[in-house]
Amino acid sequence: LEGTTTPEQIIAAMREIVENDRVLTADEADRRGFLVDPLGKHLGRPACLVEPISTLEVSAVAKRLSVAGIPIVPMGGNTGLAGGAVIPDRAAVMISMRRMDGIEPIPSGASSVAVDSGCILANLQMAARAADRLFPLSLTAEGSCQIGGTIATNAGGINALRYGTMRDLVLGLEVVLADGRILDMMRSLRKDNAGYDLKHLFIGSGGTLGIVTRAVLRLFPKVTRSATAMVAIRDAACSLRLLADMREMFGERLTSCELIDRASLALVLRHDSAARSPFADPPAFVVLLQLDGNDADAGLETDLEEFLATKLECGLCDDAVVAQSSSQSEALWHLRHALGHVLRHAGLRFSHDISVPVEAQADYVEEVVRSIARSWPEAIVRIYGHLGDGNLHTIICFPDRKPSDDPSGSIRRQVDDVIDGIVMAFGGSVTAEHGIGSSYIGRLVATRSSDELNAMRAIKTALDPDDVMNPGKIFAL
Amino acid sequence: LEGTTTPEQIIAAMREIVENDRVLTADEADRRGFLVDPLGKHLGRPACLVEPISTLEVSAVAKRLSVAGIPIVPMGGNTGLAGGAVIPDRAAVMISMRRMDGIEPIPSGASSVAVDSGCILANLQMAARAADRLFPLSLTAEGSCQIGGTIATNAGGINALRYGTMRDLVLGLEVVLADGRILDMMRSLRKDNAGYDLKHLFIGSGGTLGIVTRAVLRLFPKVTRSATAMVAIRDAACSLRLLADMREMFGERLTSCELIDRASLALVLRHDSAARSPFADPPAFVVLLQLDGNDADAGLETDLEEFLATKLECGLCDDAVVAQSSSQSEALWHLRHALGHVLRHAGLRFSHDISVPVEAQADYVEEVVRSIARSWPEAIVRIYGHLGDGNLHTIICFPDRKPSDDPSGSIRRQVDDVIDGIVMAFGGSVTAEHGIGSSYIGRLVATRSSDELNAMRAIKTALDPDDVMNPGKIFAL
Repeated sequence: LEGTTTPEQIIAAMREIVENDRVLTADEADRRGFLVDPLGKHLGRPACLVEPISTLEVSAVAKRLSVAGIPIVPMGGNTGLAGGAVIPDRAAVMISMRRMDGIEPIPSGASSVAVDSGCILANLQMAARAADRLFPLSLTAEGSCQIGGTIATNAGGINALRYGTMRDLVLGLEVVLADGRILDMMRSLRKDNAGYDLKHLFIGSGGTLGIVTRAVLRLFPKVTRSATAMVAIRDAACSLRLLADMREMFGERLTSCELIDRASLALVLRHDSAARSPFADPPAFVVLLQLDGNDADAGLETDLEEFLATKLECGLCDDAVVAQSSSQSEALWHLRHALGHVLRHAGLRFSHDISVPVEAQADYVEEVVRSIARSWPEAIVRIYGHLGDGNLHTIICFPDRKPSDDPSGSIRRQVDDVIDGIVMAFGGSVTAEHGIGSSYIGRLVATRSSDELNAMRAIKTALDPDDVMNPGKIFAL
Repeated sequence: LEGTTTPEQIIAAMREIVENDRVLTADEADRRGFLVDPLGKHLGRPACLVEPISTLEVSAVAKRLSVAGIPIVPMGGNTGLAGGAVIPDRAAVMISMRRMDGIEPIPSGASSVAVDSGCILANLQMAARAADRLFPLSLTAEGSCQIGGTIATNAGGINALRYGTMRDLVLGLEVVLADGRILDMMRSLRKDNAGYDLKHLFIGSGGTLGIVTRAVLRLFPKVTRSATAMVAIRDAACSLRLLADMREMFGERLTSCELIDRASLALVLRHDSAARSPFADPPAFVVLLQLDGNDADAGLETDLEEFLATKLECGLCDDAVVAQSSSQSEALWHLRHALGHVLRHAGLRFSHDISVPVEAQADYVEEVVRSIARSWPEAIVRIYGHLGDGNLHTIICFPDRKPSDDPSGSIRRQVDDVIDGIVMAFGGSVTAEHGIGSSYIGRLVATRSSDELNAMRAIKTALDPDDVMNPGKIFAL
């Protein structure tokens, strides 16, 4: 392949490694919808899209391409929100992992499971449930996102407060490096201090250091007792106090603690016909609490009711409902999940997936509302997300403008500057869950020291000296 | 300093950066006992030992030394068991962190704390307790080991089942690289996907990539309800079944689950005058269970008693005692903690700090006993440790020989080969907690693929191209 760059020659080379029908032309890939991300953006045009069925095929493909300096773009479920699978301008090959989707049988009581990286998250959740186990990662895209993608992006979601992010759930990993070498680190050990823990390098690296082909993931005892509540609360400071009190009282049984502000809840109630508010008057904030326990937690629901009664009494909460059935619990959770699809009714909007230290969240909310009102009195601030993790989705909405009303991106840049400035002042992160991908490279550079960025680049160069693994992500080309 | 290597010149150069009395000659350092590790081995003779009091001093020292190619050996509490602070043969400088031992004030309800790396673990535990918080890392050396050392070695200990190892407790890190650059990653965020998560590279790297100067560590709600039990059990398979049932029943409240075999317990009872067995007949194994809960766990002790009653009834356990007071709980824990100091009565012995997948532990124990009996019928196998983590300390003892009876190390090598072979067959690690240091380099090479070792070397070269940071550790010189 050296020196050649025509798609036809690349396709021919790929078909020497994988079967013909698993090498798709750009047109075929496009026709089948593989080249559009969930934000509706076209990813670009690869020379071809390859669908390997084994680690050895992935390795052979990578080796062949890297020798010729042809970029490799790994593709998971294509649900990323940071442009992590955008195709570079030069001839590149997409490697889709979707055909490598096996799940090892799960014996009774197993504490881990080996999976192929193309496995869809919801399928793994189901397989775990069928074996009376729990795989706790849960997020909006779980029906189509793949395990490899959730590892490459260190996905978070609604249960991270208790179980951590994907990083905390990975015990072992198999990775194909740019030059085709296979790192087999498929160990299922809870403790292992034999040299550097390389797997953590690949988790969250957005496919820029290698392609994840398999993983060993942690499993947990299934949940047998649950309780869900929604609490009306007057300000973010009270919600933090409630979170702290809940953790003192219930420890790790607090699986989720989600905040939704009034403007976000109003949008759901207006645009989602299935949504019902449990409160007559719209509160400034609601907090959604999920407690999950084991057989020793028979009294969990009663304990939660009694706990919230004391919080109402002392005035920390203004109102509270505890779900009396699983359908009531689902109705409360629906208010949270519906946020993803009603935001398109919010006009021109700019989303920020930020995190700040847990204790700083109330001050962060106050500062965002004040700063945005100062610069754009017409804007609506919507804040919701994972209060337990300090991870608040912050959406600055201009209801009187259409999403297309910022063609030059000038408003976006100004809004970004305001939010990023506040986030940095609190020692936060401008991308808590979604990663850098290709969309947020400028914001990484603006918010990290040059020493840190240089250390990242040194790692990249050490493992992928010719920059063939997903180039243009995390770092500028 | 270039081209110079006499201790006097190095001392003079160091005294240009730090005050005279914080640059100790090798003789002074030796006199003060800084050059002997807990196994009684002398670490070697440095050109001098430097005691910086600030990150800037550490940075200036590292910069000066690395330019001249003079090795830097970071020293924490000097409690490591793998020769991680052994001094190379050429002129080298030890950097002791003991004077950088500050702990940031801990506000009520704080979920993290910033500490200097020279802080002694027990001091941090106490500071957390004084603020009604819990810092959960707990291990035998906690009275003298330092936070920096526990990070560099990714320490584990008795609470890792619930809270993870040190890696899981670190939110942020400040590291001085070989060339003196300071990586300030002192963030206290639960979620942060802005580029590579560099901190994980340094955790467990044994000081070979940089010197940890500060860290942000997680804090947890304090424990308000506890229950401790010791169970007599006939074989390792039953202990695994008990562990699984405990986790189903009590979830994360199971903080510790420790196994002790008959020969280990007998040694404690024979040589520790304070040790009392709760069982009349010595069982094949005992399992020590620690449950910790919050205010919602008022019935924890009763729940544990009822649970163990059903396990006695169905024959999974042969006997069980639940502590009725904190002093009874301490007496049970004493049997576990005393193991560290009674082993010296076991004659010639070879210790292995191994891990295997949790579910494989019973087969591992059986295989070790069988293999050792085949080769050395006179040997006594002692196995104890962290059943919940798959981390079993395996001590092969020759009671009729003195510790000095293997001068050439030939028996050690044969025993290592047997144990390592079994560990590898189960997909385990030959160093679960203690790390590679300088003592286990050969075993790292023997048990990891060359691709993995080469990737580790590439990382080392990327961050420390001249190999000045703790050379001769993890990798051979």
